[in-house]
Amino acid sequence: MVTIADVRAAAERIRGHVHRTPVVTSATLDREFGAEVFCKCENLQKVGAFKARGATNAVLALSDDTASRGVTAHSSGNHAAAIAFAARIRGIPSYVVMPETAPQVKVDAVRGYGAEIVFCKQSERESACARVQEERGATLIHPFENLDVIAGQGTAALELLEEVPDLDLVVVPVGGGGLCAGTAVTVKALRPETAVLAAEPEAVDDAARSMATGIRQPGVQNPKTWADGLMTGLGAPNFELMQRHAVTVETVSEAAFLEAAKFFVQRTKLVIEPSAATVLAALRQRAAEFAGKRVGVILSGGNTDFRWLAALDEYDSR
Amino acid sequence: MVTIADVRAAAERIRGHVHRTPVVTSATLDREFGAEVFCKCENLQKVGAFKARGATNAVLALSDDTASRGVTAHSSGNHAAAIAFAARIRGIPSYVVMPETAPQVKVDAVRGYGAEIVFCKQSERESACARVQEERGATLIHPFENLDVIAGQGTAALELLEEVPDLDLVVVPVGGGGLCAGTAVTVKALRPETAVLAAEPEAVDDAARSMATGIRQPGVQNPKTWADGLMTGLGAPNFELMQRHAVTVETVSEAAFLEAAKFFVQRTKLVIEPSAATVLAALRQRAAEFAGKRVGVILSGGNTDFRWLAALDEYDSR
Repeated sequence: MVTIADVRAAAERIRGHVHRTPVVTSATLDREFGAEVFCKCENLQKVGAFKARGATNAVLALSDDTASRGVTAHSSGNHAAAIAFAARIRGIPSYVVMPETAPQVKVDAVRGYGAEIVFCKQSERESACARVQEERGATLIHPFENLDVIAGQGTAALELLEEVPDLDLVVVPVGGGGLCAGTAVTVKALRPETAVLAAEPEAVDDAARSMATGIRQPGVQNPKTWADGLMTGLGAPNFELMQRHAVTVETVSEAAFLEAAKFFVQRTKLVIEPSAATVLAALRQRAAEFAGKRVGVILSGGNTDFRWLAALDEYDSR
Repeated sequence: MVTIADVRAAAERIRGHVHRTPVVTSATLDREFGAEVFCKCENLQKVGAFKARGATNAVLALSDDTASRGVTAHSSGNHAAAIAFAARIRGIPSYVVMPETAPQVKVDAVRGYGAEIVFCKQSERESACARVQEERGATLIHPFENLDVIAGQGTAALELLEEVPDLDLVVVPVGGGGLCAGTAVTVKALRPETAVLAAEPEAVDDAARSMATGIRQPGVQNPKTWADGLMTGLGAPNFELMQRHAVTVETVSEAAFLEAAKFFVQRTKLVIEPSAATVLAALRQRAAEFAGKRVGVILSGGNTDFRWLAALDEYDSR
């Protein structure tokens, strides 16, 4: 399984290819959340999300022979862009499987990094991806059930703790669990007494139920949530690492994390996507517990079209 | 009239009270605009806009006796917040006249800085403000027809040129002309060969017509524009300073500056308001002329609710 040594090796491997993102603080945030808040700004990462870390580590870790045949992934989100980005760094082909219904802006972004896009029906993404593997000999890079990806995602927490070693708590979003597992491995290795809290949308609460029951629960089918980066079910190694490292899960409502996203964007002038704001909503819910404490939050990404702002107005007026 | 000595005095006066905002660069912006772009981020300024500079300078420049009776302004925008902010620094009362129809969020923001709000009908803002002056003895701080305000706004360009001395061009938005005049004074004093370009929405093109005719033209009545910070007509001292310092005006369409705003926000993850994006649209229109040159752009503010994104979609689909 993934250890801190893997995370450190990932950090070496991806250095110079991805950003060492800033840790941003703000008196406004401290006042609002009643804690000392340190924001690890993965919204300012390459491709606009932490996904660049894991994808780059996984692609750079391949043998030359394997890498030369290219990599593939099925995604219409940040992982797609990250795989295309990482393949370009390595100078190898990438084949990204996307549903025919993917927004043109996302298609353009992935193509802009030089990926070949393979369109398919939404329901046939896995088989289309399997065909690319077979026909091209390309290697599938899973977005979270991949130990190199998990180790890569852990480098965000590594940088955060290098800069602010004495955190009482680190809050991280959980979807498939790549970032969450990588963060848990890193935090618990460097400072065991620091708590790790995973923020999860109520609409996709399989991680909360998995941790509560001790058995990995299936993902929610067709969830309705604005946290489009957190819709997938928790992965197997991810769950195991979260258990091993005593992660606690806090679920947050749509209104709660959208409100937090709006507050953050309006006050800091930094763009975060709704998925990233789950950590702020979770912190607000646990404010009493962490009053005056030093809290690191991993702001996972900043790719959004802001349509959720109008949705939030509707929540407000209810 | 305002000179570089006034701008330097303003910089001394406001130091420590307002932010020295960062100058941000990005390979993406350089590629997009075909120039080396240096963004002076007044969207990250106190109260979210450059207005904090001029208001603070004007309020701190008052004599103790005058200041003790407070200050007043009529505005529902960034200047209102800036006056309230500056008065709090000085520890004096502020009375902000706002139309009864002002959005609650703006009312709350101004009240949050400790101002007393005087509500009135939209058409009676000036008389309501005059009454406050008479009854309270408060001093009116005009948002742009005030030499201390103009000198204060010039400090943004002063910091920009201290950091990047060899700019070929500085682009700045123009509405009432406080920021534009202050910038022109500063740039031409420090580096006469640097051009100053003022960006103005087509819907409020009185500055362009004023400069073209040599006679100050009246402001546009009830203009329809998303650049809500640039709706007022050009002020008298502002016009004179723009003429004296050879400012050129470039008008930009709604679609052009909203598109530029969207591009900037999506790619840099920094929030700017539509008014601020006029400078990027103007630079794009003059790209051929400034290809490969070093260009400073003053991003005037970041207070926006993003409703313009939906409007831009409509432009796109036309």
